Amino acid sequence: MLKTPVIVLNVKTYAEATGNSALEIAVTMDKIAKETGAGMAIAVQATDITTCAEKVHIPVFAEHIDPITPGSHTGWTLPEAVKAAGAVGTLINHSEHRLKLADIDVCITRAKKLGLDHIICSNNVSTSKAIAAFSPNFVAVEPPELIGGDISVTSADPDIVSNSVSAVKNIDNNVKVLCGAGVKNGKDVAKAIELGAEGVLLASGVVKAKDKESVLRDLASCL
Amino acid sequence: MLKTPVIVLNVKTYAEATGNSALEIAVTMDKIAKETGAGMAIAVQATDITTCAEKVHIPVFAEHIDPITPGSHTGWTLPEAVKAAGAVGTLINHSEHRLKLADIDVCITRAKKLGLDHIICSNNVSTSKAIAAFSPNFVAVEPPELIGGDISVTSADPDIVSNSVSAVKNIDNNVKVLCGAGVKNGKDVAKAIELGAEGVLLASGVVKAKDKESVLRDLASCL
Amino acid sequence: MLKTPVIVLNVKTYAEATGNSALEIAVTMDKIAKETGAGMAIAVQATDITTCAEKVHIPVFAEHIDPITPGSHTGWTLPEAVKAAGAVGTLINHSEHRLKLADIDVCITRAKKLGLDHIICSNNVSTSKAIAAFSPNFVAVEPPELIGGDISVTSADPDIVSNSVSAVKNIDNNVKVLCGAGVKNGKDVAKAIELGAEGVLLASGVVKAKDKESVLRDLASCL
Amino acid sequence: MLKTPVIVLNVKTYAEATGNSALEIAVTMDKIAKETGAGMAIAVQATDITTCAEKVHIPVFAEHIDPITPGSHTGWTLPEAVKAAGAVGTLINHSEHRLKLADIDVCITRAKKLGLDHIICSNNVSTSKAIAAFSPNFVAVEPPELIGGDISVTSADPDIVSNSVSAVKNIDNNVKVLCGAGVKNGKDVAKAIELGAEGVLLASGVVKAKDKESVLRDLASCL
Repeated sequence: MLKTPVIVLNVKTYAEATGNSALEIAVTMDKIAKETGAGMAIAVQATDITTCAEKVHIPVFAEHIDPITPGSHTGWTLPEAVKAAGAVGTLINHSEHRLKLADIDVCITRAKKLGLDHIICSNNVSTSKAIAAFSPNFVAVEPPELIGGDISVTSADPDIVSNSVSAVKNIDNNVKVLCGAGVKNGKDVAKAIELGAEGVLLASGVVKAKDKESVLRDLASCL
Repeated sequence: MLKTPVIVLNVKTYAEATGNSALEIAVTMDKIAKETGAGMAIAVQATDITTCAEKVHIPVFAEHIDPITPGSHTGWTLPEAVKAAGAVGTLINHSEHRLKLADIDVCITRAKKLGLDHIICSNNVSTSKAIAAFSPNFVAVEPPELIGGDISVTSADPDIVSNSVSAVKNIDNNVKVLCGAGVKNGKDVAKAIELGAEGVLLASGVVKAKDKESVLRDLASCL
Repeated sequence: MLKTPVIVLNVKTYAEATGNSALEIAVTMDKIAKETGAGMAIAVQATDITTCAEKVHIPVFAEHIDPITPGSHTGWTLPEAVKAAGAVGTLINHSEHRLKLADIDVCITRAKKLGLDHIICSNNVSTSKAIAAFSPNFVAVEPPELIGGDISVTSADPDIVSNSVSAVKNIDNNVKVLCGAGVKNGKDVAKAIELGAEGVLLASGVVKAKDKESVLRDLASCL
Repeated sequence: MLKTPVIVLNVKTYAEATGNSALEIAVTMDKIAKETGAGMAIAVQATDITTCAEKVHIPVFAEHIDPITPGSHTGWTLPEAVKAAGAVGTLINHSEHRLKLADIDVCITRAKKLGLDHIICSNNVSTSKAIAAFSPNFVAVEPPELIGGDISVTSADPDIVSNSVSAVKNIDNNVKVLCGAGVKNGKDVAKAIELGAEGVLLASGVVKAKDKESVLRDLASCL
């Protein structure tokens, strides 16, 4: 399982993080992780898993898996396929890719069976609590209205983080909580950890930055 | 654009066609295509595009693209990403991955803009005709009830093929028609072409065969 | 089939058009239609069909049907059910309720079989043309970005109306075209008809108006 | 809230339970409930709520609500609309109409705010537990593979009922549990209650029965 505290970068489908550009970011994170010892992971598009997983030592995640087993499912994301490509984990139920409740259950069961680490995204305290009932590795709470914005969830709505932590731990003390949405710098990371989270999930704060490396170094410095 | 007549193999998410197994099939097709001059293409899972595209000369297709542009679309399939990975084309609206009408329109527009070859799947004469209105490269008609079955569409329902061809050509004479569902051998390919199709789309007939190479050689021999 | 030219009001799920408020609007339209002879129809929520159909003579439409036959489909909208409730027609594929291509095909087939009048919504010239291939009663073109806005499609993008009319008639001359999005007054109706449409589909322009009756009278006066 | 123990009949979109036929079943249940004092409720199609709610005293439920507030949502099921039509409650997340996790959260919140009783369907112990985290009125556990079948969940998989009861009560002792799938007679009802459920949710066992009244009387006799 991911070493915590951890910074998980989700590169989404940004132009700045597709193909070679995804690999460049992964390589930068790998370098910083090696130098600083900070816990770091990167979630990339399915098409970029093989190349990233070959070239870096930090954990490479898929951004999504579908609730399927091998068979006739043209164009869907098979958990076995992301594992074969080199992913060691996956995001599930990201705010931009929400799943039906029964499908979250299937995805978590499949990830556990295949030994894929899994971060299940939630949008508030109630859904964090519901997800904890499945005993996943991680719940990552991200208020959708703050995703991609300028204010970190840790400043805009610190209670959603601390309340998610206590609600989740109340259901299953082994489940770890990450937080995300608007996270941009080391200060946000430090606050996240102070609120009880064991790391952050972020995207645009790094991917859209002019100097990705210095943002990543700042984030890592506050773990 | 794909050279026709053509055999397009969709490997779906079969265990027998994930990771290295997908690559093995692609390499076999590549060898046969080179030896025989037959038109062949393979559609693989997003995770397998890079490796297949690096190793073979036949066209590698994605099995699906989503109707998106670069941006915040965690876990969806970006047309630019499958192109960057080496795909030269894509299936769209496969029976196992149907899209909303407006999204088919967007996917075709995006594929054209990026220079991705595109095969739009339909399920009957009416939907073949509707899809032709978008002037795609290919329409592939596949009656869902025959997919994965033992009887080829060319025997079970030859009219759906010939009527799709005439309906499509009536709307736009430049659109080429493929057919699929239950296609398993060279005789089926020959019949498809006799019915006016310019090739076949198939999956289990090859992927589930014990001796994939001899099935592929038989298919190629009747183009 | 709807008498044309026609004004079709879609009351959506507005608070101002739920339950008794939907009935009040239907009664007002009924009165104006009787007095002026204008062609008018109202599409209401499934829950309001029975009451409206009992009380008014103008055609009452459903806002949507699902691509199902009677059976195990908890909570979906059965075409037979809207007909039993008194609807004589239905909208299909509204911009706020888009359907998969194959499902539009099923919905149209089911509507035809049950004798339900049907208006299929499209979002541009290409999708209008594709829908025409199914030979429905009506195609209603509505650019989504103008829906609910202040500028009528007939002013903001008259070409989308006239080009949809010619594209649709080219495929099937019997299919009638409506247009919508931002339509608010009689002038917009007159322009729609001048552009070749046989009526308009509108919603907020009436439902959100302080004086619904005078807006409706103005619309009717320009048919 | 529903008086328990309770028999909740979901009439789905069966031909035998559309329009007048839905009303006839509701009237029969109403008569039996009055005579026997048994707790009974009926969930009907949106189109049939008004008529049923006017004519019977037993609680009338919607089969589904969508996670929306009043506004521009053409053809979706507005919670306010089912309430205005006379429903006092609703099913949510039925196996034939599954919702995204975040949408279940919204639907429950909306139902609570409007004072609509709500039964959230689950498919196994894990999802029952997750749903309990939202503190709904009821969780109804129904293994999808047994729905519509000949063997009652209470015989085929009694553990799923008793384990759901304990998992749910562990999360929130106020949440009541129903069970369903294959329930057909009074013996099944008695067993459900013995397993800790406070009632049953059923459909085809009544709707498809030749003599609906005697099946309903048998069910009621074992509450």
